[in-house]
Amino acid sequence: MLPADLPGTARDALLAPLVDHHCHGVRRDDLSRAQFELLIGDGGNPAPPGTTHFDTPFGAAVRRWCAPLLDLEPHAPPAVYLARRAELGAGEVNRRLLAGAGVVAFLVDSSPDDTSAGSSAGSSEETSDGAFDGIFGLTGGVSGDLDVLSAAEMGRHGGAAADEIVRIERIERDVAGTAEIAVDYLDTLGEELAARAARAVGLKTVIGTVCGLDVDPAPPARGAVIAAANRRLADPKETLTDPFLLRHLLWSAVDVARERGLPLQFQAGFGGVASGASCGAAEPHRTDPSRLSAFAGALQPLGVPVILLHCFPFHRQAAYLAGVFPHVYVDVGLALPYTAAASARVLDELLELAPFHKLLFSSGCRALAETGYLGALYYRQALGAALATRLGTGEWSAADAARIAHMIGSGNARRVYRL
Amino acid sequence: MLPADLPGTARDALLAPLVDHHCHGVRRDDLSRAQFELLIGDGGNPAPPGTTHFDTPFGAAVRRWCAPLLDLEPHAPPAVYLARRAELGAGEVNRRLLAGAGVVAFLVDSSPDDTSAGSSAGSSEETSDGAFDGIFGLTGGVSGDLDVLSAAEMGRHGGAAADEIVRIERIERDVAGTAEIAVDYLDTLGEELAARAARAVGLKTVIGTVCGLDVDPAPPARGAVIAAANRRLADPKETLTDPFLLRHLLWSAVDVARERGLPLQFQAGFGGVASGASCGAAEPHRTDPSRLSAFAGALQPLGVPVILLHCFPFHRQAAYLAGVFPHVYVDVGLALPYTAAASARVLDELLELAPFHKLLFSSGCRALAETGYLGALYYRQALGAALATRLGTGEWSAADAARIAHMIGSGNARRVYRL
Amino acid sequence: MLPADLPGTARDALLAPLVDHHCHGVRRDDLSRAQFELLIGDGGNPAPPGTTHFDTPFGAAVRRWCAPLLDLEPHAPPAVYLARRAELGAGEVNRRLLAGAGVVAFLVDSSPDDTSAGSSAGSSEETSDGAFDGIFGLTGGVSGDLDVLSAAEMGRHGGAAADEIVRIERIERDVAGTAEIAVDYLDTLGEELAARAARAVGLKTVIGTVCGLDVDPAPPARGAVIAAANRRLADPKETLTDPFLLRHLLWSAVDVARERGLPLQFQAGFGGVASGASCGAAEPHRTDPSRLSAFAGALQPLGVPVILLHCFPFHRQAAYLAGVFPHVYVDVGLALPYTAAASARVLDELLELAPFHKLLFSSGCRALAETGYLGALYYRQALGAALATRLGTGEWSAADAARIAHMIGSGNARRVYRL
Repeated sequence: MLPADLPGTARDALLAPLVDHHCHGVRRDDLSRAQFELLIGDGGNPAPPGTTHFDTPFGAAVRRWCAPLLDLEPHAPPAVYLARRAELGAGEVNRRLLAGAGVVAFLVDSSPDDTSAGSSAGSSEETSDGAFDGIFGLTGGVSGDLDVLSAAEMGRHGGAAADEIVRIERIERDVAGTAEIAVDYLDTLGEELAARAARAVGLKTVIGTVCGLDVDPAPPARGAVIAAANRRLADPKETLTDPFLLRHLLWSAVDVARERGLPLQFQAGFGGVASGASCGAAEPHRTDPSRLSAFAGALQPLGVPVILLHCFPFHRQAAYLAGVFPHVYVDVGLALPYTAAASARVLDELLELAPFHKLLFSSGCRALAETGYLGALYYRQALGAALATRLGTGEWSAADAARIAHMIGSGNARRVYRL
Repeated sequence: MLPADLPGTARDALLAPLVDHHCHGVRRDDLSRAQFELLIGDGGNPAPPGTTHFDTPFGAAVRRWCAPLLDLEPHAPPAVYLARRAELGAGEVNRRLLAGAGVVAFLVDSSPDDTSAGSSAGSSEETSDGAFDGIFGLTGGVSGDLDVLSAAEMGRHGGAAADEIVRIERIERDVAGTAEIAVDYLDTLGEELAARAARAVGLKTVIGTVCGLDVDPAPPARGAVIAAANRRLADPKETLTDPFLLRHLLWSAVDVARERGLPLQFQAGFGGVASGASCGAAEPHRTDPSRLSAFAGALQPLGVPVILLHCFPFHRQAAYLAGVFPHVYVDVGLALPYTAAASARVLDELLELAPFHKLLFSSGCRALAETGYLGALYYRQALGAALATRLGTGEWSAADAARIAHMIGSGNARRVYRL
Repeated sequence: MLPADLPGTARDALLAPLVDHHCHGVRRDDLSRAQFELLIGDGGNPAPPGTTHFDTPFGAAVRRWCAPLLDLEPHAPPAVYLARRAELGAGEVNRRLLAGAGVVAFLVDSSPDDTSAGSSAGSSEETSDGAFDGIFGLTGGVSGDLDVLSAAEMGRHGGAAADEIVRIERIERDVAGTAEIAVDYLDTLGEELAARAARAVGLKTVIGTVCGLDVDPAPPARGAVIAAANRRLADPKETLTDPFLLRHLLWSAVDVARERGLPLQFQAGFGGVASGASCGAAEPHRTDPSRLSAFAGALQPLGVPVILLHCFPFHRQAAYLAGVFPHVYVDVGLALPYTAAASARVLDELLELAPFHKLLFSSGCRALAETGYLGALYYRQALGAALATRLGTGEWSAADAARIAHMIGSGNARRVYRL
């Protein structure tokens, strides 16, 4: 679906394999209609009586673009789509959709999806605190890991390489469950971060989702951290919301990232927020990446790349930060498959200010392989439209257009993640 | 003015009668040029010397689209338009414009318009505190009711059904003027809310305009409410700005809404703000509906539908909340007639994320019947453009396009307001 | 590059000479590639290894549109562009680009550019605190004045008239360097403001950049100002960040502006922010002009025009304030040359709500004459596209289109600045 008048070089660059630098493992199990609807929806709730989550931009996109990969006509009715999906089985569907994305490497947050209502819906069937899962995906490790594909499996299903991104809040959750005294807990936390980072290409934090991106740029005082650690160990099953401990965790991750030359991903904007009403999650306006600028500035001298994920509807702010800070990178992740038919404007808004060498592609793929496929499809359509416009008005040369498409699609990611 | 290439089914759905789920009664009296200019303007001030409020997107739209309904050429000069308007008389003009909107049912906030500079301008001629009127329209009941059409009159003029929306701050104002001791005041407030709600299809609050949408989600303590009530009775003529009392009023409205299954409308964004500088009105950025997310979350278990009005320029945030919360609905109301020639992008941005079953149409009509006519006209043009684009790229099927146009234009409103 | 189908009257109005009501003097010296790259970039940092600031929307625009004025092909490679620039010399390049902008009058903030990374880059070679310069450009007066063209020189190079805009924070810096006791300092400050204003057409503040636009609308208490003045004199070389003193300075400027009938410019949005991480500069979200609404309201009765500069990405908020307040004017300044190929949407968003008699043109030109040329070029292209769309849909008449283009391009500026 690329513009007909694109020159071949630009077309080739758009169709070249992508590095999907931020995605989650997709569900491995066959899904009921109720489960699938919850995974389409954004808030972890069933659609109100008389409605369906298929009546969303994303749902319409699934019927339009994913149906043909399942041998159906475009715009297949939801029931037909789900029947065919069940018929083929989750494994085959995942293979078709992930391979269809045209991705050469997946960088996978292999923790259970921390934002998808879907994952919440799924795991809340097995776990008692589904409400938490909806936002933080902090299901018990086992059940959580069991129901989504690992990084390696994502690669196998998609015919691509795969590497791990370590979500630091998940590591804290695991450590909190085992430690007994504050000092051990803090030591183990540092050791675990280092150990996991040694096998990963990047780190990721969802702190913006928990308490907002306006993070105090100063490391917390040791005393406050110890005190918070003691409170934490008294209730290790809860989602961590203590700001001192979250900042300590973040700075521990920064130390590891600096030592190993790894980038640090920050969830920002709505891709990183479920209901601002539950679980002390930050209200949506506090996920504006502008609010991270003081903290990002503190990381600049350390040379730790900061990668802003999703960002919508604050992607103009994110693009500005990517221009101001030499170490800040940006994508619109999930915003593309979720805004679907309107995604071209969203990407074009990101292109307004962001340096071309600071833009990355990710699908933000979560729970459903449809997200990964649609993320790549809408990225190529949206960038294709942006290039066609700029070539049509003579703003860019064909050679620049092809070069920029290559940078955003894979070149920048290879550089910053050292792939 | 619909795109030529729209299939008949989508065209028919766009031209079908609309439910205008949020409007105000329009002025019944003939207006001087000074009055009309004030009613076009957004801030309750005359245009600076050497300028005219006709030199606004809305003013240009009046000359382009309303002139022909008054038997004039498009783009008629302001003086010609106003002369013809006076010649026909307010009654005939209101009939032509309201009937021209193609509305099957008006849901009318029959309090004096609480946002229109116009109403302010109008009533400030009769009342001493015009400045207040500009923001809250809290003129004395009588004068306030006299100069605008009642809900029933709006229906008769527009050849449509009409129902009432009860603005709770207006009821409080009436009660405060009569009660003498705090307990009576609070009891009467609850009784009045219940009595008025019994004749209405919904409730409405302008709390976002008064002190921002970041409303503490907890009901206020009884003691604080009593204390605030005593302060209130000492000065019942003032606009209510006490946060405890406003929250008490809001929770009283929630109780009534829950009992009667009525939705609760929240003014959000700029449609709900006049000058942030006067009367302790919230500054514009505090009307971002994102800030309501904690409170909206508190209403979710109660099953009270929350309807976000206007929302511009935070309509992307509103669309997100409508996706996250099963009980949240959204429109862009006044933003369409006010952005006029640029309204297609505004509606398209709302369509990026919002579930199709959560979108509503309203004109936000206030003071001038021109608003109601232009609201419906630009809504149909903007949605027509959005459908044509999605059909042209094959994103949606013609059947889906028609179905979605029907849902937004009337179906969703009939369901949520139980019409 | 105007739309082919524009009627002659609109075309003539677009091509008519512009009043550039906000620009800075450009660098007079020949620039190395390192210097030029820093002046393209937005944050005062070199591009990361393996990248170039030419790979930005602005950099691509320089190669596309400025190259031909230097007798090169469009899209000339950076090295070719810079070699030719050096060959011609800064004087000739400045003459070609400034004259090419088609400006009849420049209103020049002749302080060293307070936002340009470029100015920072330049002067940080001579001064020890380049980091400060990056944000506030407060280099020592001499070196600061030496390396950029004065207002008169801007006019001569551009074949235009030129007037001065006085940046009040710069005056404070000069006064702080000379005064010894608080009372003298405060008296001298007032005298200097009055003296400088007597030779200027407007005043300008960067307070939003220093501590956010949410300025307390009340003048500070005299005692607090004296105390702050004493603290200030203890360290007069620092950038002024004391909120009491900044508010005192602002109110002193308001007094002068009222006496002389001068407008007061406020930097807003990203054009006015460098890294939110350094020097106590406000974080980007605090430069939202919405936050100025209380203060702007306080100036309304004084009749001092408030002019919001840049505003992106909060230009919708700025447009709203321009509609609500009779004394507020707005532009998108630097956002046009910086969003370059995407600038048409940015201007169109400003046109959504803003009264036509409140819109101004400025290039925000800073450090590089390329900014001034591209600012005028993209303004004409973007407004041309907006007019063509509205004429094509019949929304505006050709006569209105021409009239509005004239108002925005020069008429409004002549009125508000009394040129």
